[in-house]
Order: sequence, then C-alpha cells, then structure tokens
Amino acid sequence: MRILGVDPGLTRCGLGVIDAASARKVSLVHVEAATSPAGEDVAVRIGMLANAIDAVLDQHRPDAVALERVFAQQNVRTVMGTAQISGVVMLAAQRRGLPVALYTPSEVKAAVTGDGRAAKPQVGYMVARVLGLAEPPRPADAADALAIAIAHAWRGGAAPAGSDATTAAQRRWADAERAARKRG
Amino acid sequence: MRILGVDPGLTRCGLGVIDAASARKVSLVHVEAATSPAGEDVAVRIGMLANAIDAVLDQHRPDAVALERVFAQQNVRTVMGTAQISGVVMLAAQRRGLPVALYTPSEVKAAVTGDGRAAKPQVGYMVARVLGLAEPPRPADAADALAIAIAHAWRGGAAPAGSDATTAAQRRWADAERAARKRG
Repeated sequence: MRILGVDPGLTRCGLGVIDAASARKVSLVHVEAATSPAGEDVAVRIGMLANAIDAVLDQHRPDAVALERVFAQQNVRTVMGTAQISGVVMLAAQRRGLPVALYTPSEVKAAVTGDGRAAKPQVGYMVARVLGLAEPPRPADAADALAIAIAHAWRGGAAPAGSDATTAAQRRWADAERAARKRG
Repeated sequence: MRILGVDPGLTRCGLGVIDAASARKVSLVHVEAATSPAGEDVAVRIGMLANAIDAVLDQHRPDAVALERVFAQQNVRTVMGTAQISGVVMLAAQRRGLPVALYTPSEVKAAVTGDGRAAKPQVGYMVARVLGLAEPPRPADAADALAIAIAHAWRGGAAPAGSDATTAAQRRWADAERAARKRG
C-alpha cells in the first residue's frame, strides 16, 4: 500500500509518500515541503499548493491519504490557513476516490516515537530510522508528513501488532505504544 | 458584473449570484444553500459541497467571487469546517481565473444595513429590499451569501458613492454607512 502523508499548511505543506510493503516494511517514495509566498493573496497561495498536491497525487498515485487533523488551539491565522489547505487535500483525495484518514499530532507522535508529546527532533529521528534514511528529512514539515504516513501504515491497518510479518520496527513501535499506554 | 457571494460552511453553504448592472442596479440571478449530511466523512462532505460550488460557477459564470472571511473566534468545530470550505471556494475561483474578495461579517452587515452589528433578520430584510424580492431568502445562509455579493458590488468598486449613476439603493447605503461611521 502506498500512502501520502500530509502536514497541511499555507506557508509550508509537507508531502511525504511511503510504500508499506506486504512484508510490513515501509520505505520512502517521495518527500517535499511545498511552499507559497506569504505576500501573495490567499487564493493564489491555495492554488499553488493545490497544484503541488495534485502533482504528487498524479505522479506517485497513492492508495490512501493520511492528514493531520486540525485543531483551533494554535495561532488563529496559522490554523485558518491549515484548515483551508486540509480542505483542499481532502477534496483532491475525494475526487480521486482515495480514502482519507485523519490523525491528531499526538496520535502521530505516539505511533512513531511511542510518546504522544515527543519533540520535533525525536519525530525526525524516528522517521529517519524507520525509513532507513541517513538523517531526518528537512524541513520539519517534510519529516512530519512522513510521520503521518508511517502512523497510518502502522495504526491504520497495514500491520496488526503481533502478526507473523511483524518487523523489528513494528516491534519497537508496539513496545513503545505499550509503554506510552502505561505512562498515560 | 456578475458576482457569486459565498457564506461558507460544512453543514450549509450559502451560494448567491447577483448581477450588478451598469446602471448600478443589483438583481438576483441564483440563490441556494448547499448542504452536506453531518453523519458523513468530512472528505465526502467537502466533495459534495465542492460539486455544488462548481455547478454554480459553471452554470452562472460569475466575474468575481466574494467570500466571508473566517475567524477562529466562533465554535471550534464549526470554524474548521468553514475554513475548509473557504479553501475549496478559493481554489475553485483561482482555477477559473476569478478574483476573490474577502469580507468580514461586520463589513457585510455595515454595507447592506448600515450597521456592522445588525441582526440576521435585518440583513435578510435589506437583501430582499435591495434585490426587489417579496421576502427574505431562506435559510439565513442563502440571504447571507447574497448580502456578501451585494457588499462586494457596492464596496468592491462597482459603484463609487457619489457617482452619477448612484441609485436610490446606493444612496441608502451611502447614508447608512456615513451614519454607521458616526456611531462607530
């Protein structure tokens, strides 16, 4: 299963594509942080990011889209842009018949690091480790997009914990999740 | 000039099209409140509303889109859906090369009723009066969409106050705006 993870944002939108193979191994297909200039009209910026999202969908043809769920607790201006882009992402997925899964930031952190309150560098470190990359993808939005895709691969049904195909990475995750549950 | 006014929302999205003729007279072309079922997935709901927005754009071919500017002060869940739909509307306009203008609710109320804090029934009453309708369009989202379109026609450049072509409706608006300014 190929998954597009999206960390939505108007200034920077993280787009990360991974393959979750039948062997339960996840691998990097593509990652980028699409940007739009802060000085432009919002409609123009949304158009630019929508084009970047469409390009990734058309080029890499994922089977599912995983998206960060937006909350209104953060900075008001940022949240509005984030929600607008998330609407655009959901529409692009819907029009291609792709399922969309939403994850909170803490669900993603818990899945990837075992700690729902993990710091950004920890998420980047685990993304690199899981995908076998020499170093964390930059900027953080790119790493976050991959983390969302990994969370979907692991939590969204690609790999039930304890299955025969469980890999080392999955065992690490299952252990971490159990530990997080104990702590929580 | 033909204007599409949009009162964005995930449950109900007001869509109102008016013509602002050279005589500065505004007239109703089309109005509806597109809806999506609360029980559906957000992506499906966004897809349904995007189809309704596209249908209005394709059928009535406005020259400009006027949209309510979203704030995060209201109910958190509502605001997220509103922002998501506003992103979809801006994308649809942008992809058709249409300019998008954003107005705050109080700007719209001030333009249409002369009072930035006018109640909903007052907005509906003035929309009906300005467009020569027997009664206010229902639901309120439909009337609000038309109010946004009217605000754009009047404030957005269709009719500079004091121009030779000023109509009775425009004079009422100009008077009301001056009164509002004095009060404010």
